[in-house]
Amino acid sequence: MPDYKAPIRDLKFITDEVLGIHQHYASLAGAEEATPDMVDAIVEEGAKFAERVLAPLNQIGDQQGCHFDNGVVTTPEGFKEAYQQYVESGWPSLSHHTDVGGQGLPESLGMMVTEFVATANWAWSMYPGLSHGAMNTLELHGTDEQKQSYLTKLVTGEWTGTMCLTEPHCGTDLGMLKTKATPNDDGSYSLSGTKIFISAGEHDMAENIVHIVLARLPDAPAGTKGISLFIVPKFNVTESGEVGERNAVHCGSIEHKMGIHGNATCVMNFDGAKGFLIGPPNKGLNCMFTFMNTARLGTALQGLAHTEWAYQNSLAYAKDRLQMRSLSGPKAPDKAADPIIVHPDVRRMLLTQKAFAEGGRAMIHYCSMLVDKVKAGSDAEKEEAETLLSLLTPIAKAFLTETGFESANQGLQVFGGHGYIADWGMEQNVRDCRISMLYEGTTGIQALDLLGRKVLMTQGATLKAFTKIIHKFCKANDDKALKHLVKPLAALNKEWGDLTLKVGMKAMKNREEVGAASVDYCMYSGYVTLAYFWARMAQVAQQKLAEGTTEEAFYKAKLQTANFYFDRILPRTKAHAEMILAGSDSLMSMDEEQFFLR
Amino acid sequence: MPDYKAPIRDLKFITDEVLGIHQHYASLAGAEEATPDMVDAIVEEGAKFAERVLAPLNQIGDQQGCHFDNGVVTTPEGFKEAYQQYVESGWPSLSHHTDVGGQGLPESLGMMVTEFVATANWAWSMYPGLSHGAMNTLELHGTDEQKQSYLTKLVTGEWTGTMCLTEPHCGTDLGMLKTKATPNDDGSYSLSGTKIFISAGEHDMAENIVHIVLARLPDAPAGTKGISLFIVPKFNVTESGEVGERNAVHCGSIEHKMGIHGNATCVMNFDGAKGFLIGPPNKGLNCMFTFMNTARLGTALQGLAHTEWAYQNSLAYAKDRLQMRSLSGPKAPDKAADPIIVHPDVRRMLLTQKAFAEGGRAMIHYCSMLVDKVKAGSDAEKEEAETLLSLLTPIAKAFLTETGFESANQGLQVFGGHGYIADWGMEQNVRDCRISMLYEGTTGIQALDLLGRKVLMTQGATLKAFTKIIHKFCKANDDKALKHLVKPLAALNKEWGDLTLKVGMKAMKNREEVGAASVDYCMYSGYVTLAYFWARMAQVAQQKLAEGTTEEAFYKAKLQTANFYFDRILPRTKAHAEMILAGSDSLMSMDEEQFFLR
Repeated sequence: MPDYKAPIRDLKFITDEVLGIHQHYASLAGAEEATPDMVDAIVEEGAKFAERVLAPLNQIGDQQGCHFDNGVVTTPEGFKEAYQQYVESGWPSLSHHTDVGGQGLPESLGMMVTEFVATANWAWSMYPGLSHGAMNTLELHGTDEQKQSYLTKLVTGEWTGTMCLTEPHCGTDLGMLKTKATPNDDGSYSLSGTKIFISAGEHDMAENIVHIVLARLPDAPAGTKGISLFIVPKFNVTESGEVGERNAVHCGSIEHKMGIHGNATCVMNFDGAKGFLIGPPNKGLNCMFTFMNTARLGTALQGLAHTEWAYQNSLAYAKDRLQMRSLSGPKAPDKAADPIIVHPDVRRMLLTQKAFAEGGRAMIHYCSMLVDKVKAGSDAEKEEAETLLSLLTPIAKAFLTETGFESANQGLQVFGGHGYIADWGMEQNVRDCRISMLYEGTTGIQALDLLGRKVLMTQGATLKAFTKIIHKFCKANDDKALKHLVKPLAALNKEWGDLTLKVGMKAMKNREEVGAASVDYCMYSGYVTLAYFWARMAQVAQQKLAEGTTEEAFYKAKLQTANFYFDRILPRTKAHAEMILAGSDSLMSMDEEQFFLR
Repeated sequence: MPDYKAPIRDLKFITDEVLGIHQHYASLAGAEEATPDMVDAIVEEGAKFAERVLAPLNQIGDQQGCHFDNGVVTTPEGFKEAYQQYVESGWPSLSHHTDVGGQGLPESLGMMVTEFVATANWAWSMYPGLSHGAMNTLELHGTDEQKQSYLTKLVTGEWTGTMCLTEPHCGTDLGMLKTKATPNDDGSYSLSGTKIFISAGEHDMAENIVHIVLARLPDAPAGTKGISLFIVPKFNVTESGEVGERNAVHCGSIEHKMGIHGNATCVMNFDGAKGFLIGPPNKGLNCMFTFMNTARLGTALQGLAHTEWAYQNSLAYAKDRLQMRSLSGPKAPDKAADPIIVHPDVRRMLLTQKAFAEGGRAMIHYCSMLVDKVKAGSDAEKEEAETLLSLLTPIAKAFLTETGFESANQGLQVFGGHGYIADWGMEQNVRDCRISMLYEGTTGIQALDLLGRKVLMTQGATLKAFTKIIHKFCKANDDKALKHLVKPLAALNKEWGDLTLKVGMKAMKNREEVGAASVDYCMYSGYVTLAYFWARMAQVAQQKLAEGTTEEAFYKAKLQTANFYFDRILPRTKAHAEMILAGSDSLMSMDEEQFFLR
């Protein structure tokens, strides 16, 4: 049976010692309650809930899956009860405004708990995860009345939310969507159409479901500029705010899919369902971006979650499993063979996962602290945070899910043939992880967003905002102890800019160069970004060791993992750099028919 | 519904035009029957069987899986009937000796048919696949009587075979195995023990199953030098060669696993089962290597199979699916959006699969022609072929399965979110493929075999045998038309030797360096090897175009794919080269306890 232990020490190292979250809270408006003691208490309670309630349901969720019967979806055994407990403990309200019943704590504190919840049981975590996105959308774009009717119930967790974008003929290309919203006399709208891939679209965990739906008004312009956003509740809400009549939105079926079986992926049929416009007409896609950015960071977190799960479980196995002797002589001569953790290639696989888990953790929580600043910082802080987030969100989403899938597979690989057997839970981790590179925009879409929209369209301004930070760090830490990390980081940081310039020049002549370079550019960016976080972690560890500490082994492990990352992972940038500049010719020269000649 | 069309044209290009298989058969002893017409006829019949009978069962096999009930295993609907048809058509006997009822055709011709069979339905193909390995073992090591009793029935396909190595506590480390064989008075042995992960260990497709089993004699030395090989039939065989009494070997359960659901992965309990020694006592592991080498090439083929399946199905989808406009302006202005094949990143994913499929096909069939020479060549041919095969088998197994998994995932990725949905068959392809990097020796084990045993232990002699061939090719083709491929190939070929020397020097001081470098070394070797085959294919295509051809588009596509491979895949060698030399320090410096500090 796989198991999960929340890595509290590591989270504290990253958020407190490296990212300085307590200073951050001390200066953040409205974060007065987030004192160090409060943060510790919340993190510890979150860890307990994740470890004790959610982790044991992870494998059950996969095995039982969700069941569909005539419009009704039943979640796996224990899911409903766990959700009840989650609601009773007040978790949904953690980082929402006090004026809608929230606890008003920072988004980043919520993210710490969410990391544990997500790692313990990703499929389960998607139910509250989708709600969180819906809440953020309503908070920003809803009217006071809409907030009162829907947001308060989402904040308590009594109701859950969804995000209805995709249709059978369009996912990435939302400009093509067909769902129609016809105005009614009472100011509401009647929505008709079919949405697919609606996570948590129907379930038995809450008394109502609030769908956030993209649809077209009758007079809407074609394409993405004619899309509006609507609230469509499963049950209409009475004037007193209670659950009323059933609305004409129904789950037509659930998908049979590779993984995340515990989460219901629904086909939702809107048959003249009653809905309410959120935000201005035809500006739905803009409003939806709020949701999508939250969701993209949430999906980046999924990469971290499966990496952490893979690491913990493959590490435990590598310590126990006896097989072959060490190449340099027996290490456990009293046993029939050495534990496989002695073998360099097994260590390579474990350290790869460790480097991605801890580096990814730093990246995620750094981003969520930026989200705090966007929400509650000064104007200048807000602007800088928005710029950085606009760059780092597609990187985090694409890079952490790609490396998450690699890590999940490395974790499975450590188990040898046993990794392929369901009991051990490693193959589920791979299957569950696989969706993360697809939904909320595929890796290819993130990469285009990064290189095309975020970097080139700003003439490199967003990139410079981040490389300047790396540059400052490198200048400040170019001392003997860290030189072996800082020097290559500084060189990569410079190369990042140079490559961007070169691709930009090419793209001016030929737009296809952007698409040709994008995924390699995105992965390259991810490796450099992670190198920055590893260098920062190493710097703190180095300092702690210099000052003297009772946790010498812990800090040394940070330095060793940083060394591993620079020695054994970072060389991948060499390949990506070359492929970024390889140009579009060898991609574009083949005619469509030629692909089929074989 | 996924579909499969046997790539006959491509196979002919590779085996005939590039590898010169007809000249090879003309000079191969015993291959007189394998005339070009005969080869064509067999390949076409094999293609039909794969496309019409097996491909339609692939998804059914996954959905239904095998069922276990009290020792009896039922295979999915249609599997049994397909096997019957396979037997009736004489496929099992194709490449086996005429004196045991075989057709005496070359192994490599069998491999062509097997490629189609395996791609159409990997899980099904494992039943005859395991038999094939058992037959090869019996052919080489069995007594005449054993051949008469068992081999003839395996050759007709009336019975199937297995390979029983793994036990719960040992897979890679067979020296630890515990299954006991106690001699009986009649010259037979009683075998007791438990074997796991026995593919096709029990099923309903044939009237008897011949298990090839590793076990220890009572006086056997410890470790790998005390392992003997036995035949243990499911039903004992009567003197007249018919199926007799049930033997004491039973299937205890079947595994619930990630994929290849159509193949039964069995726990086999030997409770004093009657068995017969094959080969000399305590030399079982040596005899088993015959089986294992066949099986390793067979598993390399699995990588190709899933790559080909991924390519064909994602290509069809990319042509049909309309989403977004091309970056350089609409390509299908009459449609709601452009087919996604216009997008450079989709092309990158398709071409990656195409390059691995066609390059892998060349590698596989090149190897199987070497197998022909080992079986029937002159002494000198045999020696050279054995040397090359000893080098190329671990490369093909590790590299083609790793790139096969990458390709399967790229294929899924082309489908976006739909790739995650079972109906499309792409997620099954990923799940089925995942086992290939684990069984028959994990990637890590292949890599150690390659670098440690094959390359360093022979002082680089096996490597030189192959790099010399590449060197000759480069010298002979360093003309203008191919320079852009031949130059980098020659440079890599030289670097391959240099890297080997450097690792060898390091390994003399510290054995852990071998394990630290091995997987990167193996992948590096794979990329260079594939570059050689792509250069050869380009050379032939170039020549055909120069001579004038009606298939201009076909040959140009070969050149374009070669360019793609060199531009966009081969840069990966840069990263691997650096990681090969990164040393073992950052892998070995962390204490076991430190991994857990978080």
